[in-house]
Amino acid sequence: MSVDPRIQSSFDRQSMMRTLGAQLTAAENGRAAITAPILPETLQQQGFGHAGLTFSIGDSAAGYAALSILRADQEVLTAEMKINLLAPAKGDLLIARGRVIKPGRRLIVTAADVFARSDGAETHIATLIGTMIPTEI
Amino acid sequence: MSVDPRIQSSFDRQSMMRTLGAQLTAAENGRAAITAPILPETLQQQGFGHAGLTFSIGDSAAGYAALSILRADQEVLTAEMKINLLAPAKGDLLIARGRVIKPGRRLIVTAADVFARSDGAETHIATLIGTMIPTEI
Amino acid sequence: MSVDPRIQSSFDRQSMMRTLGAQLTAAENGRAAITAPILPETLQQQGFGHAGLTFSIGDSAAGYAALSILRADQEVLTAEMKINLLAPAKGDLLIARGRVIKPGRRLIVTAADVFARSDGAETHIATLIGTMIPTEI
Amino acid sequence: MSVDPRIQSSFDRQSMMRTLGAQLTAAENGRAAITAPILPETLQQQGFGHAGLTFSIGDSAAGYAALSILRADQEVLTAEMKINLLAPAKGDLLIARGRVIKPGRRLIVTAADVFARSDGAETHIATLIGTMIPTEI
Repeated sequence: MSVDPRIQSSFDRQSMMRTLGAQLTAAENGRAAITAPILPETLQQQGFGHAGLTFSIGDSAAGYAALSILRADQEVLTAEMKINLLAPAKGDLLIARGRVIKPGRRLIVTAADVFARSDGAETHIATLIGTMIPTEI
Repeated sequence: MSVDPRIQSSFDRQSMMRTLGAQLTAAENGRAAITAPILPETLQQQGFGHAGLTFSIGDSAAGYAALSILRADQEVLTAEMKINLLAPAKGDLLIARGRVIKPGRRLIVTAADVFARSDGAETHIATLIGTMIPTEI
Repeated sequence: MSVDPRIQSSFDRQSMMRTLGAQLTAAENGRAAITAPILPETLQQQGFGHAGLTFSIGDSAAGYAALSILRADQEVLTAEMKINLLAPAKGDLLIARGRVIKPGRRLIVTAADVFARSDGAETHIATLIGTMIPTEI
Repeated sequence: MSVDPRIQSSFDRQSMMRTLGAQLTAAENGRAAITAPILPETLQQQGFGHAGLTFSIGDSAAGYAALSILRADQEVLTAEMKINLLAPAKGDLLIARGRVIKPGRRLIVTAADVFARSDGAETHIATLIGTMIPTEI
């Protein structure tokens, strides 16, 4: 997968993604992927990645999956998002993979799964599902 | 409300909270409050506070509300959390107020509401509800 | 609270509500209430009221709360709904109380709480939050 | 897939499933399927299947998927369930397919998708994700 320059530009304007060290690695045809390291600055009290880190990249991967099927003059906003946390966020890198479940003119239902990579193996650490609203820029 | 030193210590170990500029202002009797500025480092693409910021302090306020009713040798983990975003995160300060809805030995159901303060007035920007699991340290 | 005839008429067209023995007891100004007995026909495997019963009246109470603030030529559809079950549905009567959290032209965020009444005392058995879409009839 | 007699017996004790005309068609190895007609008794106000019908069979399919990986002396209860409704419930038959996403000793994360069959084609009408608690009978 590749990343459309317009979507990359939207991602680059999200200072939160920079703060988390996140990178947009794919956004095309209703799918998107974001990676992020588990930085010393984004931990919870037990030393694992914070749920807010996992949520942030999962929500953004879902949002860019939605944006990838919209016109160039549209943006998306998260209306609601649910996350089930499955395992601690520990390892070398987090990978969030987002996808569109149901496109719509007024609402786009999206999902994302987040994995932690450690020594080449991936552990499924979270699953998200939520609703995006297309807006005019 | 005040903050128990043990709960403050747990909060201080969350480097994510420091990165977001968040402060724990209350945690007692099943309620907790966390404030955070909208920093230049935690924005989304339109210049508002990122949903990940709102989620992070809302989830943590819910978690510390739960922790405030547990024994000193217990911790909590988020099992699942839902967020409905109601308005853009803009203003001088975000305030997340968490509460326990239903305590339990195996699960604690919690909720949080997040407000944006601007010129002294508060706007309700998000509502969260989720499940915490008590664990032994 | 009272029930607007147009809202009562919508409720009466829901054969599911009749099957569950449900009654709309209030719908006004962003609030609604629905009651239902725990019938021999709506139980789960342990003899308590089925989660589907609790969900159905909670979702409908949220929906009629939303409908109560709309124009006469509008309807609502549930886009998404979350339920946390807090206690078994047992007792004489279930009461679902719905309310609008955030009105909007495109989306209405709603909540509902469901209680089981037994010997005059109420137990909080479920809390719901979800998104309604206003539609033209 | 087949249905274990113990799981069939649990299903048969759910009078709600009988009221909805639902049948358990599979429950094995972390997966389960339930079908239900759209009866004249289970409609919403526009004549489509009620969201409570879709929720009930989706929640039960998720629950029996979880039960299928537990010991014979265990039951499951729904702790929380989320549903996104994707399309109206119309057609000849609803089919709910549940699966375990993450097994656990204390919690089992499950999902279900519900489809409406019409003239042999299936439309995806809802997706659910939620948490089951294993209990001793």
